[in-house]
Amino acid sequence: MSSIRHHCGLFGIVNHPDAAELTYLGLYAQQHRGQESAGICTAGGQNVQRVAGVGLVTDAIKQAELQKIKNSMAIGHVRYSTTGSCSESNVQPLWVSAAIGEAAVCHNGNLVNAVALRKEYERRGHIFTTTTDSEVILHMLADLEYREQADPLASVLRHVSGSYCILLIYPDRIEAARDPSGNRPLCLGRIGESWAVASETNALDLVNAEYIRDVEPGEIVTLTRRGINSRHFVERQRCKPAYCIFELIYFADPSSQVFEESVYLVRRSMGAALAREAPADADLVIPVPNCARCAAIGYHEQSGIPLGRGFTTNHYVGRSFIQPTQTIRDLTVRLKLNPIRGSVEGKRLIVVEDSVVRGTTTRGKMQSLRKAGAKEIHLRVASPPIRHPCYHGIDFPRREELIANEREVEEIRAYLGADSLAYLSLEGMLACVRDQGHHCTACFTGEYRIPIDDAFQKNVFERDQLKLFDSRGRPAHADS
Amino acid sequence: MSSIRHHCGLFGIVNHPDAAELTYLGLYAQQHRGQESAGICTAGGQNVQRVAGVGLVTDAIKQAELQKIKNSMAIGHVRYSTTGSCSESNVQPLWVSAAIGEAAVCHNGNLVNAVALRKEYERRGHIFTTTTDSEVILHMLADLEYREQADPLASVLRHVSGSYCILLIYPDRIEAARDPSGNRPLCLGRIGESWAVASETNALDLVNAEYIRDVEPGEIVTLTRRGINSRHFVERQRCKPAYCIFELIYFADPSSQVFEESVYLVRRSMGAALAREAPADADLVIPVPNCARCAAIGYHEQSGIPLGRGFTTNHYVGRSFIQPTQTIRDLTVRLKLNPIRGSVEGKRLIVVEDSVVRGTTTRGKMQSLRKAGAKEIHLRVASPPIRHPCYHGIDFPRREELIANEREVEEIRAYLGADSLAYLSLEGMLACVRDQGHHCTACFTGEYRIPIDDAFQKNVFERDQLKLFDSRGRPAHADS
Amino acid sequence: MSSIRHHCGLFGIVNHPDAAELTYLGLYAQQHRGQESAGICTAGGQNVQRVAGVGLVTDAIKQAELQKIKNSMAIGHVRYSTTGSCSESNVQPLWVSAAIGEAAVCHNGNLVNAVALRKEYERRGHIFTTTTDSEVILHMLADLEYREQADPLASVLRHVSGSYCILLIYPDRIEAARDPSGNRPLCLGRIGESWAVASETNALDLVNAEYIRDVEPGEIVTLTRRGINSRHFVERQRCKPAYCIFELIYFADPSSQVFEESVYLVRRSMGAALAREAPADADLVIPVPNCARCAAIGYHEQSGIPLGRGFTTNHYVGRSFIQPTQTIRDLTVRLKLNPIRGSVEGKRLIVVEDSVVRGTTTRGKMQSLRKAGAKEIHLRVASPPIRHPCYHGIDFPRREELIANEREVEEIRAYLGADSLAYLSLEGMLACVRDQGHHCTACFTGEYRIPIDDAFQKNVFERDQLKLFDSRGRPAHADS
Amino acid sequence: MSSIRHHCGLFGIVNHPDAAELTYLGLYAQQHRGQESAGICTAGGQNVQRVAGVGLVTDAIKQAELQKIKNSMAIGHVRYSTTGSCSESNVQPLWVSAAIGEAAVCHNGNLVNAVALRKEYERRGHIFTTTTDSEVILHMLADLEYREQADPLASVLRHVSGSYCILLIYPDRIEAARDPSGNRPLCLGRIGESWAVASETNALDLVNAEYIRDVEPGEIVTLTRRGINSRHFVERQRCKPAYCIFELIYFADPSSQVFEESVYLVRRSMGAALAREAPADADLVIPVPNCARCAAIGYHEQSGIPLGRGFTTNHYVGRSFIQPTQTIRDLTVRLKLNPIRGSVEGKRLIVVEDSVVRGTTTRGKMQSLRKAGAKEIHLRVASPPIRHPCYHGIDFPRREELIANEREVEEIRAYLGADSLAYLSLEGMLACVRDQGHHCTACFTGEYRIPIDDAFQKNVFERDQLKLFDSRGRPAHADS
Repeated sequence: MSSIRHHCGLFGIVNHPDAAELTYLGLYAQQHRGQESAGICTAGGQNVQRVAGVGLVTDAIKQAELQKIKNSMAIGHVRYSTTGSCSESNVQPLWVSAAIGEAAVCHNGNLVNAVALRKEYERRGHIFTTTTDSEVILHMLADLEYREQADPLASVLRHVSGSYCILLIYPDRIEAARDPSGNRPLCLGRIGESWAVASETNALDLVNAEYIRDVEPGEIVTLTRRGINSRHFVERQRCKPAYCIFELIYFADPSSQVFEESVYLVRRSMGAALAREAPADADLVIPVPNCARCAAIGYHEQSGIPLGRGFTTNHYVGRSFIQPTQTIRDLTVRLKLNPIRGSVEGKRLIVVEDSVVRGTTTRGKMQSLRKAGAKEIHLRVASPPIRHPCYHGIDFPRREELIANEREVEEIRAYLGADSLAYLSLEGMLACVRDQGHHCTACFTGEYRIPIDDAFQKNVFERDQLKLFDSRGRPAHADS
Repeated sequence: MSSIRHHCGLFGIVNHPDAAELTYLGLYAQQHRGQESAGICTAGGQNVQRVAGVGLVTDAIKQAELQKIKNSMAIGHVRYSTTGSCSESNVQPLWVSAAIGEAAVCHNGNLVNAVALRKEYERRGHIFTTTTDSEVILHMLADLEYREQADPLASVLRHVSGSYCILLIYPDRIEAARDPSGNRPLCLGRIGESWAVASETNALDLVNAEYIRDVEPGEIVTLTRRGINSRHFVERQRCKPAYCIFELIYFADPSSQVFEESVYLVRRSMGAALAREAPADADLVIPVPNCARCAAIGYHEQSGIPLGRGFTTNHYVGRSFIQPTQTIRDLTVRLKLNPIRGSVEGKRLIVVEDSVVRGTTTRGKMQSLRKAGAKEIHLRVASPPIRHPCYHGIDFPRREELIANEREVEEIRAYLGADSLAYLSLEGMLACVRDQGHHCTACFTGEYRIPIDDAFQKNVFERDQLKLFDSRGRPAHADS
Repeated sequence: MSSIRHHCGLFGIVNHPDAAELTYLGLYAQQHRGQESAGICTAGGQNVQRVAGVGLVTDAIKQAELQKIKNSMAIGHVRYSTTGSCSESNVQPLWVSAAIGEAAVCHNGNLVNAVALRKEYERRGHIFTTTTDSEVILHMLADLEYREQADPLASVLRHVSGSYCILLIYPDRIEAARDPSGNRPLCLGRIGESWAVASETNALDLVNAEYIRDVEPGEIVTLTRRGINSRHFVERQRCKPAYCIFELIYFADPSSQVFEESVYLVRRSMGAALAREAPADADLVIPVPNCARCAAIGYHEQSGIPLGRGFTTNHYVGRSFIQPTQTIRDLTVRLKLNPIRGSVEGKRLIVVEDSVVRGTTTRGKMQSLRKAGAKEIHLRVASPPIRHPCYHGIDFPRREELIANEREVEEIRAYLGADSLAYLSLEGMLACVRDQGHHCTACFTGEYRIPIDDAFQKNVFERDQLKLFDSRGRPAHADS
Repeated sequence: MSSIRHHCGLFGIVNHPDAAELTYLGLYAQQHRGQESAGICTAGGQNVQRVAGVGLVTDAIKQAELQKIKNSMAIGHVRYSTTGSCSESNVQPLWVSAAIGEAAVCHNGNLVNAVALRKEYERRGHIFTTTTDSEVILHMLADLEYREQADPLASVLRHVSGSYCILLIYPDRIEAARDPSGNRPLCLGRIGESWAVASETNALDLVNAEYIRDVEPGEIVTLTRRGINSRHFVERQRCKPAYCIFELIYFADPSSQVFEESVYLVRRSMGAALAREAPADADLVIPVPNCARCAAIGYHEQSGIPLGRGFTTNHYVGRSFIQPTQTIRDLTVRLKLNPIRGSVEGKRLIVVEDSVVRGTTTRGKMQSLRKAGAKEIHLRVASPPIRHPCYHGIDFPRREELIANEREVEEIRAYLGADSLAYLSLEGMLACVRDQGHHCTACFTGEYRIPIDDAFQKNVFERDQLKLFDSRGRPAHADS
């Protein structure tokens, strides 16, 4: 699967002399969650400082700047990649000075009522300097109405809808919050006297932090040099979990735990379920690189059909690749993947994909394998057909670009060029995860567990017409 | 003179198919007014777009980005250089989305009540995302109280104090405003059906625009595709001009007209006046490069003493120059200037400076000339001693660093190492400019024609203690 | 396996309007053979032109320069990476002007009598401007003694010893030669009327060229716009093949054919042989990423033990990674690999490596797996212990740094921290390749099939002392 | 004057702990002599090391590399700029390993028999890896025939013709040589126990070295840690000086001494002579920036007409300037110079140029001044018309591009758009220099004092056809 823009990744740490550097590492471990930009805000004493830039973590954040920072508290953010240009103004964390003092926020998810809230604040005279939906949270926090509440952040969060994990840094603390549906992952870890918070546990692993637990849906955890404190802004029993199943299918790193279960094991189970649901008489199971390897292992184990390798990957794919002339333009599809003739020639293949979005890349891979001599190709997709938009942070293409939109499986098979095609059933998929009934599967079913107001839905569908926020060249839906 | 940070430079244009490129050129022509950052906002239809970055115009704004812009309206800004790092967040123009729609502002000057206004808006719940004083103007414009006024911009400007020229761009127009004292220059030009606005006329020259007139103190000029419209937010007769005489002495390019007179001619007159006030028996008049050449011409013409050249300049001074080891550190003062022995050896020199701030550089030049064999050095400064801080945009060092602070001329002479020293008198200087009595000379006299509130003055003096706004590494006085 | 510096990669093409661009792609496909520098020389008419630089292909060769080239003939080279700095002077191809006209050479391998030849030419008054051994070939070609021969290139090649593949470009042709032992791979391909030559077939694949055959040991192939011509500089029957078995074990891309057999299939066979020789009672076979995946597939197929995944890989490892402070230095070993706890916890693992050189990285991986909960680790290496230096182009560390140097398997096992350790036997390995008896296995056996003069051997052992050629910071053994 | 490519600049120093850094500074001071590339070779013990690159000194040589060097001996080179691309292979100093050990050379001038010598060495089997004429000197030094001479370098230099200054560095010494005509300048200086050598004295000034004397025509000076030694390879009385008068007119920095006289004073004298020869009734003398300021001072002093300023210069002209669209292309001529209307309006001007080559730039300046209101323009050129090619290192355009080629002064005047035009006479010019009769004036007279062989002359005239050496994109005449 290749055409989904990734999510964002968050990291934060308190009470560590190398807070900025560990945050850098924590972002680096979560680079797969966003390649467009990276930023770190640190705090200590009265101020909040910021270093940030566009590109990968190693490009966006200069070592020299990083090492000058002596603060013992930091939050950081990596932002998903887009194909087009990216605005420096939207790079997170977003720093502000306001009645609450200096602060910065970073955010993973999508506030479905951000447009409405923003319009209200604009009407009241506030100004917005980015096109991210995170900005509205800072306006609310700075708003006298909320400031006067007993727990301003809790009040604010009770008034935003959508999916989000949020880190806020103040001169004296970090606040980490997860929406009542728990749609996006957020976990807590500890290194000695320091506490860390991250989107995925692999970031904790890299900085040698012990994974303690997830931040719960509807919970705010405050991290200070004295340790952590917890409170719920929505009572536990009123939180209706809607964990994004796509984190488990595709986004998260297989070495991570997400929603308190192993990403690897879930994917392997899905592959095994797929083998049970849609067996095929074949010589070899091969994963489509690089994402479907875990599901392919499951299919292989379940079916007993040997697991092989169909492609080699060029790891040096550069962002500055030459613009080829017309003559050689058609060569460029092979730049990243080369089929292994010795492996696939004359073989009946079961090719395992984690998911299929637009289908163009998958189709190219089918053609490559054919050309390398594959005798049969049985394409197996370890998740159901994607037929609905996501309002919670996944940047699927528009509905009409989805290969499964209003197409039957047979039509899709013919387009992709496989000899047979099967998707994992919804039930099969759900049987592989813990806490069944606690996941959002809207992209497959169209049933949105998190309420969306009509204006937002309209916005998502018509975003290319409306372009509400895109004055700086960023898509209007501006997830972060 | 070398230790004054420069002002900012502004440029705007409407109704031109190459608006973005002409703005780029207009900024380029005014690069001497600011080297820290550069930015351009363009408009057309409903949106305002932004390209900006740190460094010189040619570094900050990528050609590829610029040429993608098809909008016919643009404003741009170059920001003065500082020795330290600079925050990308403070790069102007500042873009916002607010109740007034999308807009962007850029600003040259210093709002003396910005701190107070900002505190008030913060108190009311607004958030600030930069440390520039320009941001408060956008908050005011977006404020319902002002929006309901018949002329919101006029109302806003009547409530800010200080020195400023402002360009605002909206999807359909540019608004150009100059404070009632006219402290900073702003001029209008025309290229066919297009109208342009710039800090200095040399920017109009470069883009082939005809200089029409200055924006008047207290005037707002609206530029649209249909032409220009004017209104005064302070009645003409109530405006008390306080043109910054330092623009004429040092800042502006000699090829420009500023405050409706030729910078070159004013400087030449000052040099001539200096020759009359402080003649010296000498062989040669030499300017201190590169700023004092106009005044030196005046001195030479008036005195009849030949005009020569004392130094050559290394034009390749790079920003990435090596950090020399201790052994050779003392060599670096000569990196930019080398005395011409053949010119000065055995000569009695009249060395003309435009102004002396700290004195350290001037002192080094005196030593260089001595070493190259100068027999006598009569230092003549074509402006009076600088003894007072500027609250209106010039970043003089703190009072105690000014060479003329609480020092007599004789003390200064001894420190600088000249055989004689004379400054142009205040009267002599003022006799050289048109519209006498309309200039701010506070840095020489301490008489501030533009009201400053006490908080601000305190702030300027104590800025190193307070650091009100510097959470991102920018000096707290945040001029733009 | 991680501590072997890679070989170089060669590519050449004639009679194609996009010769330079296809060479760029051909180098790009072979980027795994060298990341230190890249260069392309093109020809047409009377001249030979050069574009080259340090770094990856996409960094070293600017698109703008590339696209200006209209020549229909080109050769290119990627050079292996080193940990230290790299000299721009040594970037290949090496261009010369000499009695033979303009020409350029690029070279993969190691001339074992280059030092002696060079010393002789220096004695005779020639000057050398690089520290590569390729330069001596150009001196010989330009030498009157060789020029007068009926076939100068053949004469030259009969006088150099060692392992090499060479591409020479002249204004009117490319000459491609392979040493009589065929130690390094070189293959021919065709795209319509164009002929191409490459180290590996995956480069032919990428440019859509059909693989025709290998250049034979002792053969020179001339490529011109009229097609190809072949001659042998050493008679076929006198060539004693000594194909580098390490190309099959580690260097070449699995999608390539090398020495006329599929790299993938050879590696899979080796894994299978290893399973027969050294079975283990375990739950899961996992490859050490990323090189041992083919061998692991073979082990898995042979043993029937399921194939899994032990680590995830961070694909964003940047070259500009921060220099961590002492506090976090030990974290950096995990930057590239993170163990998948869900996969390995509580499992008895068979971990397949392709080869073990120093052992430090392998040891780290064992520790990672233990920490992630592996119950047993049975390390299986799909090649014999490396105990001898390579004189033919592989930059193994010095003998005393080899983990298997004078150590028994049990000692190695203890050091690496595995529960059991087995290497593939020499016989087992050789049974997996075609043309048995035609491979160089000196690194395992110490039996060098290609003669090495004593001076050279001494040089290799004492290179750190002698540093014959390293005046520009490059290691003295200067393989290319 | 703008269309002459500059010369190269040399610097060398022995016995100084900061040799590399001082060489960097010495090159920096001479940046006006070449902006295309810069390089430094250092020595100490047995080796010669090299750091070099394209662009200005500060870009070409990385500080980090420079500061790692601990050697106490260094030579460096800056190469003249060209408009097109530049080959990294030609960057000097040129390093070699040969029978003479390791060495490096850098060179300012033009060897007129380099082509013939090179052909001979190529015939004998030597290979050349650059297209610079300096390379042949290293071949000769390495040649057994010369090595066996009592004084190999002296022998070599007796066999090369043309104009040159050469620095050679060996592990234990620097050799500095100047051709028997002394065509290019080379001077010696001392800092304590260290000796330095440079093209111009301003480089000595910058590193605080005392100017001692020039290297004499036909002299070799050896610099070692024990001091300097001198010998003549051509006897003093047989040396026929032919100092390049263009060094005095245009190339050298006015703060330098060249050929043992002050560049400034010579230029001032030329301006004064011009005033005597070609007076004009005018209000103001203005120099064409930036080169003619010294001559303008002379004209002004002699004529008594005041000296003024006609243009301001944009010091921020960047190399990465945008490519303007067609619409604004004609604006770009004004990017660097803006006329000062206040200075020139209504005035009768005497405009002083140092020399006129193609005339296109001068013509543009005349138009600028007219547009700014100049009433009359009397163009005075402080040197005679340039009518002949230079074979000794100045890269004049081809004869037919010279404005004065086969054109009368009146024709030139009409083309340039001046009201009157006068050049300084040859006699007038020569009367301004010391050692009359010792200068090369061939570009004015066609009388070449340094013998040129016919092949070379043919080469210069037909270089665009022959392109003997240009396989790497550099013009064939490849001076350095």
